[in-house]
Amino acid sequence: MSSLPGSVGIVTPQAFQFDQPLALQNGTSIAGYTLMVETYGQLNAAKSNAVLICHALNASHHVAGVYADDPKNVGWWDNMVGPGKPVDTNKFFVIGVNNLGSCFGSTGPMHTNPATGKPYGADFPVVTVEDWVNAQARLAERLGITQFAAVMGGSLGGMQALAWSILYPDSLRHCVVVASTPKLSAQNIAFNDVARQAILTDPDFHGGDFYAHKVVPRRGLRVARMIGHITYLSDDDMAEKFGRDLKGGDYQFGYGVDFEIESYLRYQGDKFSDYFDANTYLLITKALDYFDPARHTGGDLAKALAQTKAKFLLASFTTDWRFSPERSREIVKALVSNKRTVSYAEIDAPHGHDAFLLDDSRYLNLIAAYYQRIDTELQTEPQADLLGAAA
Amino acid sequence: MSSLPGSVGIVTPQAFQFDQPLALQNGTSIAGYTLMVETYGQLNAAKSNAVLICHALNASHHVAGVYADDPKNVGWWDNMVGPGKPVDTNKFFVIGVNNLGSCFGSTGPMHTNPATGKPYGADFPVVTVEDWVNAQARLAERLGITQFAAVMGGSLGGMQALAWSILYPDSLRHCVVVASTPKLSAQNIAFNDVARQAILTDPDFHGGDFYAHKVVPRRGLRVARMIGHITYLSDDDMAEKFGRDLKGGDYQFGYGVDFEIESYLRYQGDKFSDYFDANTYLLITKALDYFDPARHTGGDLAKALAQTKAKFLLASFTTDWRFSPERSREIVKALVSNKRTVSYAEIDAPHGHDAFLLDDSRYLNLIAAYYQRIDTELQTEPQADLLGAAA
Repeated sequence: MSSLPGSVGIVTPQAFQFDQPLALQNGTSIAGYTLMVETYGQLNAAKSNAVLICHALNASHHVAGVYADDPKNVGWWDNMVGPGKPVDTNKFFVIGVNNLGSCFGSTGPMHTNPATGKPYGADFPVVTVEDWVNAQARLAERLGITQFAAVMGGSLGGMQALAWSILYPDSLRHCVVVASTPKLSAQNIAFNDVARQAILTDPDFHGGDFYAHKVVPRRGLRVARMIGHITYLSDDDMAEKFGRDLKGGDYQFGYGVDFEIESYLRYQGDKFSDYFDANTYLLITKALDYFDPARHTGGDLAKALAQTKAKFLLASFTTDWRFSPERSREIVKALVSNKRTVSYAEIDAPHGHDAFLLDDSRYLNLIAAYYQRIDTELQTEPQADLLGAAA
Repeated sequence: MSSLPGSVGIVTPQAFQFDQPLALQNGTSIAGYTLMVETYGQLNAAKSNAVLICHALNASHHVAGVYADDPKNVGWWDNMVGPGKPVDTNKFFVIGVNNLGSCFGSTGPMHTNPATGKPYGADFPVVTVEDWVNAQARLAERLGITQFAAVMGGSLGGMQALAWSILYPDSLRHCVVVASTPKLSAQNIAFNDVARQAILTDPDFHGGDFYAHKVVPRRGLRVARMIGHITYLSDDDMAEKFGRDLKGGDYQFGYGVDFEIESYLRYQGDKFSDYFDANTYLLITKALDYFDPARHTGGDLAKALAQTKAKFLLASFTTDWRFSPERSREIVKALVSNKRTVSYAEIDAPHGHDAFLLDDSRYLNLIAAYYQRIDTELQTEPQADLLGAAA
């Protein structure tokens, strides 16, 4: 019997230092790096119950729970991870890790470049999804985990899970990819580039060296976040939530706030520019743009996924126009053509791309049922029955 | 027999000065104003063959033909208007007019405010679609036209045509509304507001007073245009035209241009910021946001359209996600419930919102056939058989 769903409670992030240089996709390497990590639940004796959670653009290692000194700062996937929750920390040892280049404690653009003694700024290497996975693989090694029960993520996090299945096929039993895509479309890239241009052309950006000028390119970050937000919500959801509701009851005939949607987006933009690093925004959107596992197989995704061995769960949301269900189906099709074990759910949810973070009972029940299956599998088949290992 | 389709050739804009104050929707009035106008073809003796073409965001009175001193500057709807073209200038007297507040010669934010002796800047009144139509009505009066054969426009231009049918029901026989909407959605407004925020927060905007500072808020205009462009193209069309094609053949791992789509959008943004006025961009997007004829009929569009008398042609494009066919159908439905004569075409075209400006033979043939019908009607029923007039 599992207890009622609850919170993992108070959590404490840990910094893991890696001193070996890490080779990067851009041809250079990073001398050494720190990864900020949180874990929830207990690693079992067989070290078989670990689940790696990969984060998307603006999230971090803080997946679940709260901090003792900041009880309002709830983890970004707290509805998904906890005792009795879909990824049940009574059964699984769950790991959240902040990616290289992000701005929540892992080595990033605001940290000192050992080569210059100054902050990296825009010179921080443009890391890729594959670079992140390689950095995460070292964390797994450090924790003594040779095989994850699952690697899981939504959106950009789903890309990391998919990259794990390709780069480290023996290192995960299950790969859970939510609201993701095998590669960005021209339109996706276009939105990212407009956001980047807003930041790059903000006079307070100073070529990425704004730390030295004690300023932040707030205007650019604000516009970038507003654009992003539009793509995270569905047209219908926005209509439902805001419609043409007026903040002041009537048209103002000026350039302040007329509509509620304007007020909401500007607020989101302001909030974001208070805490997010502009250089991080640039490099993470590039990681999104660059992800394309079929790039080296002549565009053939099935071929790119041929070396995978994990079992897969994919989920998409009907109103997600950023990474539509069609994009998830491309992955499913490529996996099926490789005869992989794939479960796929297309969830009829109104909330667009953001749905992967929200409380939709069909979605949460799906994930819960899948993890129950993983748990049963761990009990009954302690030896991993991976495609390759079974041969 | 009409001749082969050709150009209207060299055209010359005319400035029309109006000295009477014009009352505006914002409760103020504008003292006097100039409208820049072009005409093509000949007004017949009965003055019954005039067609008013209303422009969208960045267009002008220069609908067709070229200028003697600028032969590459072809009118924005030159494929639509000309001898033997869908709106055949051998038969119709076609009028293009630059709207109040625009930046192509009609009175706008860069002109001197008689009250202060300085440029209006951001103090130029936030004019509405209805204000434009009222200003255009004075032009009709000046030209001695009591009834247009048709008022026609695409996108924001379609809103003006629709407003004509409501505000001056006896003054047009036909109303041609292409790729338009009865009102903007929350998502439409959101995109407009992000664009405005990019301009308003550009340090070179100087609260709209940038003329005095001899600068232009280029960064803001550039980002605004890039955002706009994404919404004008369909996802599929962008995929077809640009896909993930790389400008330099390989990833650059920096923040220059990687993808062709980035190069295209930045170019469009740069070009736009060379010629378009930032204050005009602000006020025209507000005119879009504010348009909502059902606002004073409790959201009942049928009621808002009850006083119309014209016959209608509506056309939409399947891949237009800015103003989708569904939005045109709302107008059609409201007109049909008023027992108006309505033709409606949903054109299966790949080019998104921009399709209304492009050469799609089904679209151009549709418009051509409709105008042939208007021409026949003018010959056979010289007395307007408007709904009201027929009673």
